[in-house]
Amino acid sequence: MNHQDYMRLALEEARIAFEYGEVPIGAVVVHDNQVIAKAHNEKELRQDPTAHAEVLAVQRATQALGVWRLSEATLYVTLEPCPMCAGSLVQARLKTLVFGAADLKGGAVGSVTNVLDVNRWNHRVEVVAGILEEECSQILKDFFRKLR
Amino acid sequence: MNHQDYMRLALEEARIAFEYGEVPIGAVVVHDNQVIAKAHNEKELRQDPTAHAEVLAVQRATQALGVWRLSEATLYVTLEPCPMCAGSLVQARLKTLVFGAADLKGGAVGSVTNVLDVNRWNHRVEVVAGILEEECSQILKDFFRKLR
Repeated sequence: MNHQDYMRLALEEARIAFEYGEVPIGAVVVHDNQVIAKAHNEKELRQDPTAHAEVLAVQRATQALGVWRLSEATLYVTLEPCPMCAGSLVQARLKTLVFGAADLKGGAVGSVTNVLDVNRWNHRVEVVAGILEEECSQILKDFFRKLR
Repeated sequence: MNHQDYMRLALEEARIAFEYGEVPIGAVVVHDNQVIAKAHNEKELRQDPTAHAEVLAVQRATQALGVWRLSEATLYVTLEPCPMCAGSLVQARLKTLVFGAADLKGGAVGSVTNVLDVNRWNHRVEVVAGILEEECSQILKDFFRKLR
């Protein structure tokens, strides 16, 4: 399994969100070559503004491991994280973040701001951007076109 | 009830965290002059890196209201929020944040970075800082002194 393969699993999660009428963003967490958590955006379903795919994935991954640290894990997410989600990855001491499409309006890993790139945090998350960017971007375009 | 009174309730939550061996940070959410949520840091108890007082308070407040928006609410927290928590307040469209002590090592509302002060977000949170600063800072000092 490579970055593209895992991102396809995150895209499957995004498709589930799409079907439920949620902004289609999906995430998976990989640890020791195993998928230990899958999640999609559930903000509307739960009426919870913190129920983004990344936060839910971090919660499920740490629950699966039984510890709050994800220092050997990689989180794959279809869209560049917002400040809350990027911050949750620092809190979890995540090893690597892989994201698909950039979020020019809300992204906090380079697009609008960069929450991960603050020298004074006690942890640095590695970042890989642009994996399956087209597909990750297209599902969002399809969703918002359908809404209009 | 004024800012000090509500911050005292947040401090009570911080004291509960202290007794459980958690970094003592507490929060309350006020809506229509009613306390609709109380929370304290539960990171170690839950082994969940997202279980900060603010995130839990936002989750409980939106659950209490039945909607994900807190656009008429004020969140009181004893310590300046980290990027994750500050981001969660933007996600919740919180009206006002009131915090006690500044967090010079991790604060994302002015101390290290300012997640709330990005002109391109579609929401601006009002901020009141320094309410019961001494007490909010002292409980953290007491906690870390006890740990050493």
